Amino acid sequence: MTSSVQSSREKPLLSEAEFIAGFHAIGEERYHHKHPFHLLLHEGKLTRGQLQAWALNRYYYQSRIPIKDAAILARSEDPGFRLVWRKRILDHDGDGTKPGGIEKWLRLVETTGLSREHALRGDGILPATRFAVQAYVDFVSTRSHLEAVASSLTELFSKKLIVLRMDRLREHYPWLSGGLDYFTGRLTQAPEDADFALAWVVKHARTRGEQDLAHAALRAKCDILWAQLDALYFAYVNPGWPPPGAFQPAKESLRT
Amino acid sequence: MTSSVQSSREKPLLSEAEFIAGFHAIGEERYHHKHPFHLLLHEGKLTRGQLQAWALNRYYYQSRIPIKDAAILARSEDPGFRLVWRKRILDHDGDGTKPGGIEKWLRLVETTGLSREHALRGDGILPATRFAVQAYVDFVSTRSHLEAVASSLTELFSKKLIVLRMDRLREHYPWLSGGLDYFTGRLTQAPEDADFALAWVVKHARTRGEQDLAHAALRAKCDILWAQLDALYFAYVNPGWPPPGAFQPAKESLRT
Repeated sequence: MTSSVQSSREKPLLSEAEFIAGFHAIGEERYHHKHPFHLLLHEGKLTRGQLQAWALNRYYYQSRIPIKDAAILARSEDPGFRLVWRKRILDHDGDGTKPGGIEKWLRLVETTGLSREHALRGDGILPATRFAVQAYVDFVSTRSHLEAVASSLTELFSKKLIVLRMDRLREHYPWLSGGLDYFTGRLTQAPEDADFALAWVVKHARTRGEQDLAHAALRAKCDILWAQLDALYFAYVNPGWPPPGAFQPAKESLRT
Repeated sequence: MTSSVQSSREKPLLSEAEFIAGFHAIGEERYHHKHPFHLLLHEGKLTRGQLQAWALNRYYYQSRIPIKDAAILARSEDPGFRLVWRKRILDHDGDGTKPGGIEKWLRLVETTGLSREHALRGDGILPATRFAVQAYVDFVSTRSHLEAVASSLTELFSKKLIVLRMDRLREHYPWLSGGLDYFTGRLTQAPEDADFALAWVVKHARTRGEQDLAHAALRAKCDILWAQLDALYFAYVNPGWPPPGAFQPAKESLRT
C-alpha cells in the first residue's frame, strides 16, 4: 500500500465520476456475489448442514457489526455524522421493542435447525471467521476515518445480491422461507446507508492519495467477506475439512 | 470460554503432571503436524508453485514473530523474564552480523524461485494469512501475560516436525536443500524456548481457572497455525482458488 500511496502523489485527482466508478469496478471484481459458496447457495446445492454452518458463522459476523459501527462512531467529532451513523447500530441491535438485524439473524439460525443458544455461545464457529471479522473491527478502529467509512461501501452492491438470494432461497429451500426477515430489512437499510457513506467519502477524499486509500479500503473489506466464504467452502464443501473443534453437521443434515 | 472458566471454579487444581499432559494432548489433537497441507509437503507431492505460496505466506508469519515477542516483552515487569524472552527477538532479527530467522526464511523464499523483494512487499499474501497472524499478535497483546506465554507452547511440538520436514524436503525437493538454514537454527532454539515457557507457565498458573486458560491459549494458537494451512490448501491445492489479488503460481511452477 505504501508504494501505491507514494506513486499516487504524481497521479492526478480522479473526477467524482471516476472515483465512484473505481468502487464499482472493485465490487465487480472482488465482492462476494461471485464466490463459489454463494453460487452453490443460490443454485440450491447446499445441504441443511452446510446452510447451518453458513448461518452460524455469519451470525458471528452479524454480531460484530454494531461493534464495528460503534468504533466508527467513536472516530467522528461531527455530531451530524454520528447522528446518521447511529442508525446502523439501531438497525442491528433493535430498539428494545422491534427486533434488530441480529435478532432476525438468530431466527434464521433457528430456521436452519440450530438453537439460538448455539449461535450465542459461539460453539464451533470457524477460527478463520473470527480472524476475518476481527480484522474488520481492527481496520475501522485503526485506519483513518475516511478508510473506515469507505470500507462500508460493499453495501453499494448488497441490494442486488439480497434480491437474488431471497428469490433463490424461497425457491430452493422453502423450509427457510419463514426465516428471511433479516434480508427484507436490509433491502432498504443497506442502500440508504451506502448512499450516505458514498457521498461522505466523495466529499472527504480530497487528494488522489486519499482516493486511493478509499479504494484500497473497499478492497480490504471485500477480502474480509471473501475469506469468510473461503473458510466455509473449505470446511464444509470441498474438501470438507472443518478444523479441530469446529461445527460438524449432524449426519441427517448432509442432504440438500 | 466463559462457561469453561466458570465451571472450572468447581474443578480441582491439576497436578503439574496432569497440567503438562494437557498441553501434550492438545498438541496431539490440534498441532499442525497433522494438517493435510503438511502431509502433502512431507510426501513430496507439492509443486514448485505450491511451495512458493507456502514460503511466501509463511514469510508473513515469520516477519510478525518478533513483533509478537516484543508485545509479550511489553507485558512483563520482571527483568529476568524479559532477559530470557529477548533472546527470541534476537533469534529472529539477528544481531546485525549473523542472519536471524527472518533473513534465513527470505533465503528459503529465494530458493523456491521467488524474489526476496516479493516477500518483503507482501505481494499476494493471502488475506486469511494476514488475519490469522494478526489474531496471534492481538492475542498476546490483549490476553493475560500467562495466556500470552502459554500460546507459545506449540514449540513443545516443533522439533519433531522440523526433523521430519528437513529429512523429507531434502529427499523430495533436493533443489530446496540450500535454503533450509532456518530449520537448522530452530532445532535448538525452539526446545530451549519451550522449556523456559513451560516451566514459567507451570509456575504462574496457580488456580484451575488459570490452568484452563493456559490450555485454551495453546488451543487458540493451534487454531491460528491450522487456519493458515487451511487457507493455503484451499487457494493452492484443492479446490485451488486463490482469492482475487492473491499470488498465482506461474504455469511452469505447477509441476512437482
